[in-house]
Amino acid sequence: MAVSTLPPQVRALQASLGPKGWVEDPAVIAPWLSEWRGRWQGATPVLLQPSSTDEVEVIVRACAETGTAITPQGGNTGLVGGQTPQGEVLLSLRRMTAIRSLSATDDAITVEAGATLQSVHDAAATIARTMPLSLASQGSATIGGLISTNAGGVHVVRYGMMRRMVLGLEAVMPDGSRLNQLSALRKDNTGYDIKQLLIGAEGTLGVITAATLELQPRPEERVVVFCALTDPLAARALLARAKGETGSMAAFELIGRRGLGYVLKNIPGTRDPFEDPYPWYVLIEFEAHEYGVLRKTVDEMLARGLDAGEVLDVVVAQNDAQAASLWRLREEMSSAQKPEGRAAKHDVSVPVSSVPEFLARADAACSALLPGVRIVAFGHMGDGNIHYDVGMPAGMPDEDFLTWLGPIHTVVHDLAANLSGSISAEHGIGVARREDFSRLEDPVAYKTMKGIKALLDPQCIMNPRVLFP
Amino acid sequence: MAVSTLPPQVRALQASLGPKGWVEDPAVIAPWLSEWRGRWQGATPVLLQPSSTDEVEVIVRACAETGTAITPQGGNTGLVGGQTPQGEVLLSLRRMTAIRSLSATDDAITVEAGATLQSVHDAAATIARTMPLSLASQGSATIGGLISTNAGGVHVVRYGMMRRMVLGLEAVMPDGSRLNQLSALRKDNTGYDIKQLLIGAEGTLGVITAATLELQPRPEERVVVFCALTDPLAARALLARAKGETGSMAAFELIGRRGLGYVLKNIPGTRDPFEDPYPWYVLIEFEAHEYGVLRKTVDEMLARGLDAGEVLDVVVAQNDAQAASLWRLREEMSSAQKPEGRAAKHDVSVPVSSVPEFLARADAACSALLPGVRIVAFGHMGDGNIHYDVGMPAGMPDEDFLTWLGPIHTVVHDLAANLSGSISAEHGIGVARREDFSRLEDPVAYKTMKGIKALLDPQCIMNPRVLFP
Repeated sequence: MAVSTLPPQVRALQASLGPKGWVEDPAVIAPWLSEWRGRWQGATPVLLQPSSTDEVEVIVRACAETGTAITPQGGNTGLVGGQTPQGEVLLSLRRMTAIRSLSATDDAITVEAGATLQSVHDAAATIARTMPLSLASQGSATIGGLISTNAGGVHVVRYGMMRRMVLGLEAVMPDGSRLNQLSALRKDNTGYDIKQLLIGAEGTLGVITAATLELQPRPEERVVVFCALTDPLAARALLARAKGETGSMAAFELIGRRGLGYVLKNIPGTRDPFEDPYPWYVLIEFEAHEYGVLRKTVDEMLARGLDAGEVLDVVVAQNDAQAASLWRLREEMSSAQKPEGRAAKHDVSVPVSSVPEFLARADAACSALLPGVRIVAFGHMGDGNIHYDVGMPAGMPDEDFLTWLGPIHTVVHDLAANLSGSISAEHGIGVARREDFSRLEDPVAYKTMKGIKALLDPQCIMNPRVLFP
Repeated sequence: MAVSTLPPQVRALQASLGPKGWVEDPAVIAPWLSEWRGRWQGATPVLLQPSSTDEVEVIVRACAETGTAITPQGGNTGLVGGQTPQGEVLLSLRRMTAIRSLSATDDAITVEAGATLQSVHDAAATIARTMPLSLASQGSATIGGLISTNAGGVHVVRYGMMRRMVLGLEAVMPDGSRLNQLSALRKDNTGYDIKQLLIGAEGTLGVITAATLELQPRPEERVVVFCALTDPLAARALLARAKGETGSMAAFELIGRRGLGYVLKNIPGTRDPFEDPYPWYVLIEFEAHEYGVLRKTVDEMLARGLDAGEVLDVVVAQNDAQAASLWRLREEMSSAQKPEGRAAKHDVSVPVSSVPEFLARADAACSALLPGVRIVAFGHMGDGNIHYDVGMPAGMPDEDFLTWLGPIHTVVHDLAANLSGSISAEHGIGVARREDFSRLEDPVAYKTMKGIKALLDPQCIMNPRVLFP
């Protein structure tokens, strides 16, 4: 759809939005149409960049009146194609970056949807608080996008997902009306919690324009350890120990040897924390509000883990720089795979107790399906979320491997579902996982979701194509 | 409606449910028709007590087919009349008490709706975990009811409300279909989070039959302190200090002098922790996973609070018995008011920073409206939730005071709304607060709620009369 074919009510927005708010220049639009890994390439007649909630309302009303579809976008860091328009009007929230309020007494920040996660971290630090959501893309990812996708990250085991941090929400609904529920309240039992529908809805039920987020006291001390292990069963035992014996665990990340090998090989400036290779590793972070006691507790816990044979070897970061270099091994796990060729990637979760079984069965099934696959498994074992990447066999032509993507996805997703797991732990459904979602979701839940979509967005103008095929 | 006038499809349930599941004896039914404070008295043709989710399905299907209304009930401890049928079939979940699974590795328990909170506490303790929801009625209140009302309690400031603890849910929807989303997953971003609609819906969107709840590591140590203060502004300053300087605060309860005076006067076996009376008090609980360091941190924080003039005097519990007797002063706050006559009770919340302003303005407004009112304010200041009870002036006849209830509710609720607060922080809407809810709720949220009710329960058979007038 070209601008010239947009309904006049939508084209009329150009005057009120001004040159910063109404963008047709293809060169300016281009970066927002391609997903950063190059998997999706989009198209849009116009990029709308409102500077206020009032302007978002005006835009959505014009689109609702004319049945014009909208794709809302934050930092364009999504991984499932949900932010890429295919002919829809592209509605970017990136100009709405204001921090409307910040309070240590309320432990809360109210911020507009286009603010980056990093800017919220920085603001919270000024009042000695923390917003305990951390992910690699935090310099680009925006609050609106993070709420719309219910972002996860490495500290979910302690603080939960984005959903837990949202105290209040302001949004423009698909009919252009405004949901006014910004507030720092911890307790509000007045009817159904409507904001929960918008959290994780991937922009299909409205446009989030601002949010009030819960802040936490900033920990006094962190301890980061890197452990070498025999297998995921040892990791599971160590996880229970680390959580139960310290009460201070903030992250527990599993790393397979192949993935670490790729990092050491492909990412400059990294080094193996150990002299010898081991089959599995975990990176654990602890945090405490007492200075000086955490290290001893962790050391004692690790000693018992070594005694029990759960841990083969361990490195404890002695300072922030060492902690950062250990974390880097984990964070580069995705980029390090690139030079090794294509992979069928998955973002599954299972109950923590089932992670070893999932890994064993998925490895066997994928290797049986396509011998020679090179599997990189890593992720947030503390919350049961495994990024399970099935790399193409060495030397296989790209176009051959592409035909295997579908069958591999089916095997991995069926297994996760079979273990009461999820086929999308944190990345969402987008357009990438719609079919497996419709196939594997509880039918009553799925039917209810479609009913809610039809109720709130009867014209299906809010991010159509996303979630439902 | 008598049993004889129930549709034959519903009467036919008698055979399949058996004598334990189908109860017509008025003597057996009677206790479940009256609210424990005597505010609501109900009526029902029959008490249904299914023993399984299958039986709940059969019941709801028969009712859906015939448009027969149902009031679901747990422990009958609700405070807003939501559990009391007025002619509806009474569906009690109390026979469904099984603990289906319990896992320290997953930090999760799966339990049927009729299990009491106490039984979940006890089960969690057997694996050295805790389910950090605590309230006075935990021996009677059931998991289904606690989820349906999104229960709060004294530890919300640290652990959040019931909503945060629900990992998975099984429910029978108003059409008799079963939502199968029991799972211990921490992360699941597949579409809208449907279970969030049922949490806090007060039985209006379906019948919760089982849930998977998140457990926490059990703290090694608790410290309970009771502080005397000048005013709520000092309490607010102390709250920020206690939270920020220890990172270990688990409860922060505000208590006004009049309320404490009633406890000391009307509850046998209680004593004032201090020699002299003070205008305000706070009870603070801290918890830690390190043994032996918490007390020192708390002592240092209190010393700074005394230096700053926030604290006038303080008692630190030296053992569990002392901690229990301090907690008792707080827990008897409601019962202690009974001998003093009627009161207009409120369960409001405002942002923590606005609690002092709320108290000052509410006191002024209520005293201006009805001179001589005896106000008892107490509650969970740590999360902004104040139980604000406006007692009748001494000597006023009951029937006179009853005419003041409506005007007092209006003044207090309007003020809470005016401060971006909630007219029902934790008790829910039920039938008691429907009118103020419809008047003060954000209109877009309210309209959305009514739409969802009509979508999921088009015949309005699930707890009709509750939430919406």
